[in-house]
Amino acid sequence: MTAAALPGAVEVSAFRSVPPFAQGLVRDLRVRWALEEAGLPYEARLLGAGDSKGADYLREQPFGQVPTYADGTVAMFESGAIVLHVAENCETLLPRDPLARARTVSWVFAALNSIEPSIQELAGIDLFHAGEAWTLERRPQAEAFVRARLAALSAWLGDRDYLEQRFTAGDLMMTTVLRILRHTDLVAEHANLRDYQARCEARPAFARALAAQMQPFEMADA
Amino acid sequence: MTAAALPGAVEVSAFRSVPPFAQGLVRDLRVRWALEEAGLPYEARLLGAGDSKGADYLREQPFGQVPTYADGTVAMFESGAIVLHVAENCETLLPRDPLARARTVSWVFAALNSIEPSIQELAGIDLFHAGEAWTLERRPQAEAFVRARLAALSAWLGDRDYLEQRFTAGDLMMTTVLRILRHTDLVAEHANLRDYQARCEARPAFARALAAQMQPFEMADA
Repeated sequence: MTAAALPGAVEVSAFRSVPPFAQGLVRDLRVRWALEEAGLPYEARLLGAGDSKGADYLREQPFGQVPTYADGTVAMFESGAIVLHVAENCETLLPRDPLARARTVSWVFAALNSIEPSIQELAGIDLFHAGEAWTLERRPQAEAFVRARLAALSAWLGDRDYLEQRFTAGDLMMTTVLRILRHTDLVAEHANLRDYQARCEARPAFARALAAQMQPFEMADA
Repeated sequence: MTAAALPGAVEVSAFRSVPPFAQGLVRDLRVRWALEEAGLPYEARLLGAGDSKGADYLREQPFGQVPTYADGTVAMFESGAIVLHVAENCETLLPRDPLARARTVSWVFAALNSIEPSIQELAGIDLFHAGEAWTLERRPQAEAFVRARLAALSAWLGDRDYLEQRFTAGDLMMTTVLRILRHTDLVAEHANLRDYQARCEARPAFARALAAQMQPFEMADA
């Protein structure tokens, strides 16, 4: 692990409370995980109901989403961008070798732009639109698209432990995307993908990040 | 413009032929545009029907998509990742100042992960699923989601010329995402977004990139 080299205290925005189906999936998990891999302490700024759509927050995050990230030097948004920013100072997440670096960044974008949209569509159908008439015709199409992408990912992975030679930010991001399918058995249909997700989630940094996201939710429930 | 600093000849994969509704939208446009901004010559490797799903190509691009990118040092995929890679050697695309750099990368991801999925869903309904019964109920929902995102983007942009202080890779990527709505009037409903898209597309590098993507399509039609 590379020692922290970012200046200033790190602050990450997150939600104080979300419905159970979203707990453990909110996108600040990615940034918390990256910061844990980098060994960087941070403070979560917890947003209450409505805060994320207020004018002040929209000046930080134009779409009212979490997470945002700020340290003494930069203020930014989008979990993919933040993870890459943190990764710049963490060899664990982003290899310095030019080819390995390029492959890592490729997989970060692949997770977010080639895999997540189809997975998010399916999750949206199941979690936000369940029972609406249109989903009867659309869901099988959406599931077929997810299946095709998972099959391609499984074929790529083969018998490797990670997407490339070792764990990187690409695996971090892909794992958080695969987690969105936790209400289905689609990942488990590919033993290598199931094992890959479990392998990445077994990292102590992931466990700390997940516990940190869950902590305010559990306090609210208590 | 920063002088080219990438070693080796640059090769970008693209399609030899696509249906008219996709011409000018295929994702290699983003990479061609970035390379033109950087003043870097490149060769397009044109894929014929079926080539992108062959085993050889899947070893380069696990999902059978374009573009891929190779120079003498790296071989990579995902248009977002490639644009950032090219941008690393082009001050026009990626400011060196840490804050401006972080904002640029934030917008590249925002275009691809917060805007494109909803736009792509709407375009998919209109271009691939027109006439299917489910779209009658779903399309208004999908359009409403796109409208909300465009309204947020328009509110952010305000009376600025670019998403941040000047044109960057973030504007390049956002412009290529807004273009996917060309079969609708949704962008034009916000005068500032319409003018923003036109301003970015007026760049000579964009014109060269678009002409280069279109050239094989026009040869095929002739």
